[in-house]
Amino acid sequence: MNKIDKTIKPVTKAAPKEKSALRAIKGGKPVTKPAPMADDTPIIALNLPTAKLSPGMAAYFRKCQEKLGFVPNVLVAYAFDMAKLESFVAMYNDLMLGESGLSKLEREMIAVAVSSQNRCYYCLTAHGAAVRQYSGNPLLGEQIVMNYRAARLSKRQRAMLDFAVKLTAAPWSVEDGDREKLRRAGFGERDIWDISAVVAFFNMSNRVASATDMRPNTVYHGQAR
Amino acid sequence: MNKIDKTIKPVTKAAPKEKSALRAIKGGKPVTKPAPMADDTPIIALNLPTAKLSPGMAAYFRKCQEKLGFVPNVLVAYAFDMAKLESFVAMYNDLMLGESGLSKLEREMIAVAVSSQNRCYYCLTAHGAAVRQYSGNPLLGEQIVMNYRAARLSKRQRAMLDFAVKLTAAPWSVEDGDREKLRRAGFGERDIWDISAVVAFFNMSNRVASATDMRPNTVYHGQAR
Amino acid sequence: MNKIDKTIKPVTKAAPKEKSALRAIKGGKPVTKPAPMADDTPIIALNLPTAKLSPGMAAYFRKCQEKLGFVPNVLVAYAFDMAKLESFVAMYNDLMLGESGLSKLEREMIAVAVSSQNRCYYCLTAHGAAVRQYSGNPLLGEQIVMNYRAARLSKRQRAMLDFAVKLTAAPWSVEDGDREKLRRAGFGERDIWDISAVVAFFNMSNRVASATDMRPNTVYHGQAR
Amino acid sequence: MNKIDKTIKPVTKAAPKEKSALRAIKGGKPVTKPAPMADDTPIIALNLPTAKLSPGMAAYFRKCQEKLGFVPNVLVAYAFDMAKLESFVAMYNDLMLGESGLSKLEREMIAVAVSSQNRCYYCLTAHGAAVRQYSGNPLLGEQIVMNYRAARLSKRQRAMLDFAVKLTAAPWSVEDGDREKLRRAGFGERDIWDISAVVAFFNMSNRVASATDMRPNTVYHGQAR
Amino acid sequence: MNKIDKTIKPVTKAAPKEKSALRAIKGGKPVTKPAPMADDTPIIALNLPTAKLSPGMAAYFRKCQEKLGFVPNVLVAYAFDMAKLESFVAMYNDLMLGESGLSKLEREMIAVAVSSQNRCYYCLTAHGAAVRQYSGNPLLGEQIVMNYRAARLSKRQRAMLDFAVKLTAAPWSVEDGDREKLRRAGFGERDIWDISAVVAFFNMSNRVASATDMRPNTVYHGQAR
Amino acid sequence: MNKIDKTIKPVTKAAPKEKSALRAIKGGKPVTKPAPMADDTPIIALNLPTAKLSPGMAAYFRKCQEKLGFVPNVLVAYAFDMAKLESFVAMYNDLMLGESGLSKLEREMIAVAVSSQNRCYYCLTAHGAAVRQYSGNPLLGEQIVMNYRAARLSKRQRAMLDFAVKLTAAPWSVEDGDREKLRRAGFGERDIWDISAVVAFFNMSNRVASATDMRPNTVYHGQAR
Repeated sequence: MNKIDKTIKPVTKAAPKEKSALRAIKGGKPVTKPAPMADDTPIIALNLPTAKLSPGMAAYFRKCQEKLGFVPNVLVAYAFDMAKLESFVAMYNDLMLGESGLSKLEREMIAVAVSSQNRCYYCLTAHGAAVRQYSGNPLLGEQIVMNYRAARLSKRQRAMLDFAVKLTAAPWSVEDGDREKLRRAGFGERDIWDISAVVAFFNMSNRVASATDMRPNTVYHGQAR
Repeated sequence: MNKIDKTIKPVTKAAPKEKSALRAIKGGKPVTKPAPMADDTPIIALNLPTAKLSPGMAAYFRKCQEKLGFVPNVLVAYAFDMAKLESFVAMYNDLMLGESGLSKLEREMIAVAVSSQNRCYYCLTAHGAAVRQYSGNPLLGEQIVMNYRAARLSKRQRAMLDFAVKLTAAPWSVEDGDREKLRRAGFGERDIWDISAVVAFFNMSNRVASATDMRPNTVYHGQAR
Repeated sequence: MNKIDKTIKPVTKAAPKEKSALRAIKGGKPVTKPAPMADDTPIIALNLPTAKLSPGMAAYFRKCQEKLGFVPNVLVAYAFDMAKLESFVAMYNDLMLGESGLSKLEREMIAVAVSSQNRCYYCLTAHGAAVRQYSGNPLLGEQIVMNYRAARLSKRQRAMLDFAVKLTAAPWSVEDGDREKLRRAGFGERDIWDISAVVAFFNMSNRVASATDMRPNTVYHGQAR
Repeated sequence: MNKIDKTIKPVTKAAPKEKSALRAIKGGKPVTKPAPMADDTPIIALNLPTAKLSPGMAAYFRKCQEKLGFVPNVLVAYAFDMAKLESFVAMYNDLMLGESGLSKLEREMIAVAVSSQNRCYYCLTAHGAAVRQYSGNPLLGEQIVMNYRAARLSKRQRAMLDFAVKLTAAPWSVEDGDREKLRRAGFGERDIWDISAVVAFFNMSNRVASATDMRPNTVYHGQAR
Repeated sequence: MNKIDKTIKPVTKAAPKEKSALRAIKGGKPVTKPAPMADDTPIIALNLPTAKLSPGMAAYFRKCQEKLGFVPNVLVAYAFDMAKLESFVAMYNDLMLGESGLSKLEREMIAVAVSSQNRCYYCLTAHGAAVRQYSGNPLLGEQIVMNYRAARLSKRQRAMLDFAVKLTAAPWSVEDGDREKLRRAGFGERDIWDISAVVAFFNMSNRVASATDMRPNTVYHGQAR
Repeated sequence: MNKIDKTIKPVTKAAPKEKSALRAIKGGKPVTKPAPMADDTPIIALNLPTAKLSPGMAAYFRKCQEKLGFVPNVLVAYAFDMAKLESFVAMYNDLMLGESGLSKLEREMIAVAVSSQNRCYYCLTAHGAAVRQYSGNPLLGEQIVMNYRAARLSKRQRAMLDFAVKLTAAPWSVEDGDREKLRRAGFGERDIWDISAVVAFFNMSNRVASATDMRPNTVYHGQAR
């Protein structure tokens, strides 16, 4: 990994954020054609110069580029500080991609239902695309973006999203009865933790995105329609 | 660190959570006097057996015990899964204890103002105590718990908490004007990120706590009165 | 028009709504391939047999079929009663397609902003597609669906949507100052009426759609992406 | 009708709205005594000159004058444009006076309950009077204006108004269970449509009235006390 | 006062509340014609037998009967306990009838604006009548019942009611700026106290009335129309 | 009582409120050491000179001083006018200290739950201390301040606080079903009145305190921790 790291140049002044981020990923070479991430400039409304990517994060960004064709803007946004980027990535990957009684689709459904309650443009765009992709059902993504009650959900998934939206809108009112409803819908103790943790995580992410006017990669909009 | 790790025994069945967590910390030896963490039993309303602490986390728990005299219950709650505990601790420590233009007191003030908006018993208790300690002003902690508008704040701190509460209650409505108010109150770009990130983090933590009925260590209540 | 009208047979029993509506349009002949309107069955959650289309409405439905390739489900939903269908169509066409100081795109933007506030699945789907089409900007449609504050709007259009959302969410609080903001953004007296009337109309339509669980034609989802 | 129509003169400049409307009705002749509609001047806060009434609308206004003793101000407000006036009148008359499983009183009760939720001065005044008249029970009108829960309603009517207020306040939350409650209270499929349509219509009218500061004819206040 | 007191008989069992109250006032003699207070039976939804009126309260009830022609039902409701009745009457009379920089009409306007925000049937009825009477303007009473923003108020009175409604709906958000607005509208320190105290009092009364389903004397509805 | 009364000097100019109040209590003699009530200066944000205490109120203040060691600031705040102070004290003492089926602790629990809903700094501080004292359970006080749902309450007390918070937040929605829940939890008719009256009283007090920025005596913060 060292070889690649050498090519990553520190950003020495407050250059437009996403351009310097691209440079960080590409090793400072000029970008010769419009990159997918460059479409909504700047990525956030705060002027925070991108830091030198740590080896681990540089590898992760390259993996994103290879696998997705782009680096999600949220990662570029956090890339001004490696400690913040790394802890965000660690938590995100554990929650959304780690082992769980919830399918990846279900976790994305929660992400979208929470983000709809909070009207978060960034997360609705990125995770709406994920629901469309994981489900192979473009309508499902749209429905949860717009009003999850309009989706034709199983009882299990409806209970899951009802809990998600209640915990988002009125966390102070969640009590034993709410956990019982999840148990009756078939969720185990660990599942309830996982639902709660995903709901909680997107209540965090939605607020970072709204606070900074974070803009999603344009490529999401057309995915899996 | 190995030496200590050997003493930590894996939990082999779903024992009452806080007892097994204690055992994990103490190396399975019987606890001879009431430990501060055992006061509100159980710590959460989900039955999740504590996992074997990783070496890093075992060390961290011991450090808590030495420095604070107890392990905060939130850590015990997350200790059913090391990946979750570690990413939580990493993010928490970076945000609340890492380098920032915000003082530690200011970050705790944000934690309490957010938790008051969300009426989170756990976080109000733990971070209310922190505000009392860092500020040396017991009233300040009470005031932010009850209604931050009642506290006699500097313009800077008032702007910070106004932003925190707006981002908590109506994240969709945060726009350029809100960031401008922070800039006019003297906050820089990185400060605005840090304020936002702390607000966001406690919107996450509040929801994990509410979703699981997490109970704070009783010791907090009497601290720094 | 007479010739076509003769072929329209009255619906004699409470057949599944959308099938009988198709028959009404097609003159009772069997539908040989899946029609676009048939995708989300039934169109509404009330069992209301489609009435015989009046000559004017039969012509209008054919025009929809020719021009759009489908009859919008809202029209099929109202087709159980000609007086209701006709007054709905008359008001809709005057407001959305008639002469106005507002462009058709602007009227659709209002429709979507209102429907987003009310989280109306039908109207967000149908009018979100219209914003994408009229604007040639797929992102704009998405942004207004998700949170109009995320769209990069002119001052005029921002003032227009701010008014729309306030009038939707808290009509009792609209006063002279709100009208003055529209005037300062360049709107005339008649424009203010038109903005208000479109806002009001979609506050009506959203509620008919929500009350009846109206399902949009699936074809909208893929339009103008 | 021709004879009367000839006497209606077009309004040639932006005269005070309600005066020109009177002239349109009366054929341009001076009004010799205070007309009931002239009491709250101007009728709306937008300067929109009244158009020449179409023959149908002129006849309708005369009918209002004969039957009610005045032309409701909402009609005068819409009279700047015949297409808008006509589609409003068509929809209103079908909904409120047409055939329905709901009595006219029940439709007016819905109008008032919705307008109370939206705190619409115009509609509460005009339709509050209608409830008092249709019911012969002055208290009933007052109660629904103030808080429909204070009225002694039948189960049927209580279910109807509960649905009306929920659909007004939180349309996104209306689901199958809400329709089922109406069915259990004795309402049929068409009745549910009619309830919904009246609720929806007044959510429209309330917003046109609030957006334009529409003033009710003073005569309503004293009716049927 | 003794002579009158002798005629007041203690109520010996839980008779229907308003009947026993009447008996208390009339000295136990049969009521020969429908008394104004008897119209909405029972006065409250709690079964609380009326106590023997103290001499002071008996005199006060007689004074009400002579001056108003009826005893306001709120007094009958409190008459199950003399200490409660007396402290209520003392506070009410001081606030609403005592010396103040606010006119009696202004105090009643506040009462109605607060009760409208809280949708209190009892208080809107009784104090709506008072506004109509004191102002000699029946419309003013109706407007404040329905939406005080629709009333044509002086700047002073508008500032007063804006404060009243804010203090009612979101007391936690009232701060120095709100008091300053009152000062700029011409109110002195004592006036601000009086406004606040009247707002506060009706936030109390509204809740006693709503909690007990208190019914106003029917006579109010027709007063000063 | 005369002897003491003579020593109380009238306040002759708008001196700083709490100083003159102290003088009124102490008979104008210089206060030689910091009095507990002087800690948060001034007590309210309105400049209202303290009046000469009536004999009854002077005795009451002395009793407070002797029994509590301080005069609660709310009393000092009302002391600009004896009629207001006396009616407040009479109502308060009857409700909170008089005979009732509710224990004094229960009444204080209601006071705190209401004040938490209204986020009233003064009342949360003063009555939070009372709950801690009466219950001998410091946590209980904290829990009701923060979120009463976090407290381990009996069914009776939970029903009581649920009613209290609903009546505070949405008084218009309280109906027979809510009173029935109290009856089923074991409360009698008079108990329901008492619960309602205490809820109502603190909805009043919270608003007087918020409207005037009333500051609690600092001594409360440390009591019964």
